[in-house]
Formats: sequence, C-alpha cells, structure tokens
Amino acid sequence: MLQNYLEEIEKELYTNPLNPQTANLVDPIHYLLQIGGKRIRPILTLMSSKLFGGKTTDALSQALAVEVFHNFTLMHDDIMDNSPLRRGAQTVHEKWDINTAILSGDGMMIQAYALLQKNANDKFALLFERFNTTAWEVCVGQQMDMDFEKRTNVSKEEYIEMIRLKTAVLLGCALELGAIQANASKKDQEHIRKFGEYVGISFQLRDDYLDTFGKKEEVGKRIGGDILADKKTFLYLHAIETGTSSDLELLRHFHGSHPNDQEKIASITAIFESTQADQEILKKSEAYYQKAIQELNHISTLDEQKNELRALAAWLLERHV
Amino acid sequence: MLQNYLEEIEKELYTNPLNPQTANLVDPIHYLLQIGGKRIRPILTLMSSKLFGGKTTDALSQALAVEVFHNFTLMHDDIMDNSPLRRGAQTVHEKWDINTAILSGDGMMIQAYALLQKNANDKFALLFERFNTTAWEVCVGQQMDMDFEKRTNVSKEEYIEMIRLKTAVLLGCALELGAIQANASKKDQEHIRKFGEYVGISFQLRDDYLDTFGKKEEVGKRIGGDILADKKTFLYLHAIETGTSSDLELLRHFHGSHPNDQEKIASITAIFESTQADQEILKKSEAYYQKAIQELNHISTLDEQKNELRALAAWLLERHV
Repeated sequence: MLQNYLEEIEKELYTNPLNPQTANLVDPIHYLLQIGGKRIRPILTLMSSKLFGGKTTDALSQALAVEVFHNFTLMHDDIMDNSPLRRGAQTVHEKWDINTAILSGDGMMIQAYALLQKNANDKFALLFERFNTTAWEVCVGQQMDMDFEKRTNVSKEEYIEMIRLKTAVLLGCALELGAIQANASKKDQEHIRKFGEYVGISFQLRDDYLDTFGKKEEVGKRIGGDILADKKTFLYLHAIETGTSSDLELLRHFHGSHPNDQEKIASITAIFESTQADQEILKKSEAYYQKAIQELNHISTLDEQKNELRALAAWLLERHV
Repeated sequence: MLQNYLEEIEKELYTNPLNPQTANLVDPIHYLLQIGGKRIRPILTLMSSKLFGGKTTDALSQALAVEVFHNFTLMHDDIMDNSPLRRGAQTVHEKWDINTAILSGDGMMIQAYALLQKNANDKFALLFERFNTTAWEVCVGQQMDMDFEKRTNVSKEEYIEMIRLKTAVLLGCALELGAIQANASKKDQEHIRKFGEYVGISFQLRDDYLDTFGKKEEVGKRIGGDILADKKTFLYLHAIETGTSSDLELLRHFHGSHPNDQEKIASITAIFESTQADQEILKKSEAYYQKAIQELNHISTLDEQKNELRALAAWLLERHV
C-alpha cells in the first residue's frame, strides 16, 4: 500500500532544480534526504489528498515541502543535540562541519518553502499560513525541549505540549496541506489535522515507553537510552510526581553520569514500574489514539475511504486491528 | 528625510505578537533587532512603494520581513564567522550560546515569512516567489564566500557574483517588494530591483576599498582588517592577477598569520597601489553606480519623484551630488 506513495515521493525528492554552482550547499541537503527515513509525513499528505478526492499529483509538491522541512529540522537538531549518527549514517555536521550544517539547513528550509508554492495555485496563501504557523510551533517545541533539560519543575502536561509542538503538529500539518489541496471543507481540514496531531502525540508517548520497556530487537536501538541521558520524559515526570521519598532519593542519586549503566537502568526502570508510570504512559497513548480515531470518524467522507489512514495509524502505533 | 521612515519601522519591529511562552526563543530575536543597524533595507521598501504611489503602510510588513530576514542571516553568519561582536554589542551566540543562535535564527526566518504575508493580499504569491528566490541566492552567496576561503583560483568576476548574491540581491528585493505592493508595472519592478542590486555591488566594492584605503575615524573600524584576515577581496584578486612575480611572492609570504600586523598591512597595501587595484576597484564601483542610475532613469515615474532614492544611493556611497 505504502509502496506506490513512496515511489512517487522518492522519485521527486532529488530532482529539485538546484543550481549546480552551489555543490557545497546542495550536497549535504541531498545526502540527508537520501539516507532515508520512513517518509511518513509526505505519505500522510498524499493519503489526505486522496481521501478528499484529489489526485496524488495535486499535493505532491506540498508533501515534499513537509518532508524537506522535517529533514531541515533534523539537520539543525543534530547540531544542537551533538548527535554523531542519524539513521545509522553520519550526521551532516559530522561528515562536513557545523557551518555547513547550519547553512545547508537554512537553504533546505528555503527549498521547502519553494516546494510549498509549486502547483499551489489559488491555495497558496492558505497552505503557506498553515505551514508557516506550524514551522514556528516546531521551533517552539524544540526550544521547550532544550529548556526542559535545565528545569526541575516540568509537569506532565508541559511535556505533552512539548511533544505536540516538536513532533505532532507537523504530522497534522502534513495531512492538512493534502486536504487543502483537495478542496476539503474547513471542518474536514481541521478534523484531519487534529487526527494527525493526536496520532503524533500517541506515537511519541509509545516511543518513550518502548525506549525503556521495549525489546532491543523490536525497537532497533539500545533500551534505556532516555534513562541514561536523564531525559525528562513522561515516565520520569510521573515517577517524580507520584514516587515515594525513597524513590525520589534514588532518582536524585542516579541523576547525572553514573559508573554502572545497567544498574542505573534497572533501578530507574523499577521505580517506573512501582509508580506505574509504564501503565500511565500507555493509558495516555491509548487516550490520544482514541481521540485521533474520533477525529477521523467526524470527517465527512465515506467511512471505507478512511481505511487507508486508519491502517497507517495502526501500523505506526503497531496495533493489531 | 530618513527619520519618518525609521520611526515607522522601529515602532513596528518589536511589536510582533510572539508567544511569550517561548522567551528563550524570542529574546535573542528581539535583542539582535534592537542593537540597531541603519535599516537601509526596509527604508528602501518604503521608498519604493512611495515612488510608485503606494502608501507607507501598504508595504510596511514587507519592509519588516526583509529587515528581519537580514538580521536572521547576521545571526547565523556570526556563528559561522565566529564573530564576537556585532554593531559593538555581543553577538547572540556569544551572549547566549551556539544552539540558541541556531534555533532563534531559524525562528527569525519563519517570522520574516510571516511578516511577508501580512497585508500582502492578492500580491502574496508574487511577493513570496521573489522573496524566496532571493533568500536562496543569499545562502548561495554565503556559501561562495566560505568556499572562496579554501580556493586559490577565484576570479574577480566570481568575486563580484559572490557579493551580488550575498549582499546586493536583498537590496534589490527590498525595493522590488515595495514596487509590487504599490502596483508598479513588471518593467518598473525589474528596473528598481536592478537599481538596488547595482547600488549594492557598488556599495560593497567601495566598502572593500575603504577597508584598506579608508581613514579609521571615517570608516569607524580598524583599517586593514581584510588584509589581516587574508580575505580574497577584489583588491587582492586584482593584485594576484596583475602583479609581478615578486608581488606574488610577497603576497604568498604574508599569507596566513604574520608576527607584524603593521608590516603585513603596509606591504600588501603597497602592492595594491603598485598594481593599481585601488584605482580598479573604484572604477568598478563607479561603473555599477552608473548602471544603477541608468536603471532608475528607465523607471516610468516622474523624474523628480526619484530624487529620494537618488539621494539615498548617494548617501550610501558617500557621493556629493
């Protein structure tokens, strides 16, 4: 099912008419785009356009705009997080240098805007307004994430607002742009955007759960990474809020670098379990999934036409439906 | 004359309705905007709008978009150039840190786009296309500038193309946006854009001349900075192209760090003089000024209405007309 969408997307993603004079600006952009990713966002745009009766090609440029914008945020976030690897390959600032990653990232963002305008016709002002508002929100989310590292009083609600802005709104925007291009009603544009936002929050919470409670072979990365990095995830914030005084003392004790990684992971995981943070986060994730499905149900198209998006959400959240 | 424009601009520049939740994202943006600058670009937009019969308010948001975009490029360029000071004040990455300057810069660019859409009405698609094309060119110019540092075979033509992209096109764009908002004809839009581009190239060449041949008290900065930084300016490239073999040997000898700054400046300045690089650069600057004036002459409005722009160009280039 996804394959058809993917082929269209991959084919177009590297054919931007970029000035060859500027290889040092463009090569890092192409490099980051070609090391992969699931292309969830552009697929969402195309599915949304199809749901509302549009042709795939109607929203292809807007789909690419979202994917290129997403990759721009990765290029800059990787600098800020000092990450050496992205999808198993060197990050741009590692392969080249920080200056290259800053400037190529800037250029990438400009290319995303250029794609947004392509074939936008009379929808451009609205597409742009939604896209630009979302772009700002994504920056705010990244700022909140960075702020949280230094704060000690983050609430679970603030955490959810942070992941909403940093991750979920762009999924919502991807769907909304497809809906706009396919002439969906204002109400449907909003329902599908909220569907994406809620799926995004549900997904991120589940991702946080799996980082501690997943199986390495299924998750595809080391378990306990968030714990070792002292990340203030929902699990951690719940433990802080509801833990006993000895839990809190242990959390303080393990905060910062600790000689024994396995001991740190095991002890904090035990606290997450005793405070039922694991149950809470799954419950929250489920609640947002249900909210997402409700939004989908409200959309005015025939129910069977929504199956593709339902299946994608289930696949993303690894649900068996 | 400039004061009226400036008041409008300064008043609006800090009243963006930015989300207060995000102080750490927004404070660096406001900081950089308030440490000043001549506001040449937004003044150009307003003058252009007025020239073609528009009201100041018609193009005020677009004027601010250009100024905010320009300051975004400064925020990121200052990281790349490792500059501690901007307009005598700490740069953002110095006062905060690099991550803050990257993310606030990104946010600033998004704010520039938001301003571009404000009051754009049915002109938005065109305003956006011109603005975004220019934004990409500015990135290409910055990349060329960075590439030149590592290259040994830069030509004078390439140098002029670099300053055109890095600096001049945004001046042209500032004027063009004002013309678009004021319903100028396609031809006039192009003439005024070219006027700005040529003024920009003329200005930058003169700036390079003054960096070596100016007087400290007039230029307001140390003389010889480009020479000490081994910058491949027009002066340097001309000396390389036309110098004797002993000139070239001396240039090679002084390349890189040298224990005696004054000796390095004096020796290289002497080569610039013996190769008549100083005369060549002034001639080139003058030629671009004349091209600018020609473009202005081609504009279809009454000649006396152009006096304001003529005076601004003369002031920028410190000409007595």
